[in-house]
Amino acid sequence: MTNHSGLVMTQARAPLTRLSQVMDEQGNWREQALACERPLTLYLNKREIVTLMTLGEDPEALVLGYLRNQGLVERLDDVLAVQVDWEVEAAAVVTSHTPDDIEATLAKRTVTTGCGQGTVFGNQMERLKGLQLRQWTLKQSQIYHLLDSLNQHNATYKNAGAVHGCAICSAEGEVLSFCEDIGRHNAVDTLAGRLWLEGINSDDKIFYTTGRLTSEMVMKTAQMGISALLSRSGATEMGLQIANELGILMLARAKGRHFLVFSGQTRLELDNKPAPLARSNKRRSQDE
Amino acid sequence: MTNHSGLVMTQARAPLTRLSQVMDEQGNWREQALACERPLTLYLNKREIVTLMTLGEDPEALVLGYLRNQGLVERLDDVLAVQVDWEVEAAAVVTSHTPDDIEATLAKRTVTTGCGQGTVFGNQMERLKGLQLRQWTLKQSQIYHLLDSLNQHNATYKNAGAVHGCAICSAEGEVLSFCEDIGRHNAVDTLAGRLWLEGINSDDKIFYTTGRLTSEMVMKTAQMGISALLSRSGATEMGLQIANELGILMLARAKGRHFLVFSGQTRLELDNKPAPLARSNKRRSQDE
Repeated sequence: MTNHSGLVMTQARAPLTRLSQVMDEQGNWREQALACERPLTLYLNKREIVTLMTLGEDPEALVLGYLRNQGLVERLDDVLAVQVDWEVEAAAVVTSHTPDDIEATLAKRTVTTGCGQGTVFGNQMERLKGLQLRQWTLKQSQIYHLLDSLNQHNATYKNAGAVHGCAICSAEGEVLSFCEDIGRHNAVDTLAGRLWLEGINSDDKIFYTTGRLTSEMVMKTAQMGISALLSRSGATEMGLQIANELGILMLARAKGRHFLVFSGQTRLELDNKPAPLARSNKRRSQDE
Repeated sequence: MTNHSGLVMTQARAPLTRLSQVMDEQGNWREQALACERPLTLYLNKREIVTLMTLGEDPEALVLGYLRNQGLVERLDDVLAVQVDWEVEAAAVVTSHTPDDIEATLAKRTVTTGCGQGTVFGNQMERLKGLQLRQWTLKQSQIYHLLDSLNQHNATYKNAGAVHGCAICSAEGEVLSFCEDIGRHNAVDTLAGRLWLEGINSDDKIFYTTGRLTSEMVMKTAQMGISALLSRSGATEMGLQIANELGILMLARAKGRHFLVFSGQTRLELDNKPAPLARSNKRRSQDE
């Protein structure tokens, strides 16, 4: 189909879960849904770029967001077509022109990608220098509204586990866009693609992820122009350092009524403190 | 220092956690330990290969395991030196000869790495074809012994969260080697490096991870020559498919007395079924 901007785009869909027979510790067999994981090889103007291992919830937005976050496509207007075909596990993106430095960018990725990070660390930080993120104030009540709203959105996780969830939310805590994927990087790239496609202004939005706040996740948040970051999991010291540098309000370990504010504390209005009795010291999950 | 095999190797160490002041939902400030995350740029015979974002628990084993799992170094005997210097965040590995196809391998990585997977999917599966993993029988009682033993090993997680843990365990459920890292891929690569350095026979070992069993984690298990895989988290449908192809006994969602056997059910001896009453249907963590 063709969307309003004249961009030709498929809407390829594939099953997100499959049923398997598994045995439990009692020796009982049961049917268990498993999240699908499939390779999607991305071609930019017929040039093979990368193979993404993905759940495949929204592959067109994923490849657009990936190209955007990797700095391989600068403007959505340059994109003429995005065509995904699961039969051949390929995504073909056609742009009006290929960036001159694409070979350099790809060569650079060779030496800086790996260890499950999947990004160009050096380049990313350079591109973020001088970025001015809007410093708005978030209310605790809006965080709680957001955490409550999120419970209706993680369908694949509830069904099969093994996926991360990400969301773009309004300052009021409404979930505007939600995405699940095997890799938390794919989920955030998919949301970055949707922001582009829907022309959503991001400087008053909140980015939520179930995943840990590593350096890369914080950088991707800034790349989307978002200055409020919320995670169900923990953060690394480098993630915090970058959040401080870029002026990001970063909350981690947000579950139920609990959260920890790691950076930008002055931007949070505590308008709805829970009764202290509600506190629990129960351990967070190992995957945090 | 120099180890018995004449390999020159540093033992670079760096702090694994740092303290930060964070604010909770009550507005109370507290000291919180955060897991460190640092870039380590790997040079093989002065050729820049990759930058790994790592906790840095055992960097020498990490880079050796990375080179091994990426197929860039085939035999430990070819390695002359592994020198890590955190001052410059670099690891220099010197081998007696560089594989002829290194450029091809690196070029291939350019197009297949990404999305937080950090691997060469196509190549990996080719290299695993025809692999014969030993089909031994694991006892339920040994799994429970292993799960109990693991509780003393996740020091950084207990202190700071935000890391994954991995372990190589004996068939009897003893933890032989444990490693934590920001990326679960780094943790498993570190263990692969240690198996090499210590010349441990892996075909009767169990690989444990807190992370999800994606296609890549299952392939890395097979690359280490291990045919029994245990995870605290869930698995993807592709991870299960590969485990079936390679003959891996795969257990997921192993916590307390519960687990699900996804593949290789005939290789598990249920010698210690818990009392059915012990069962709980409580949801697993979002990060599964």
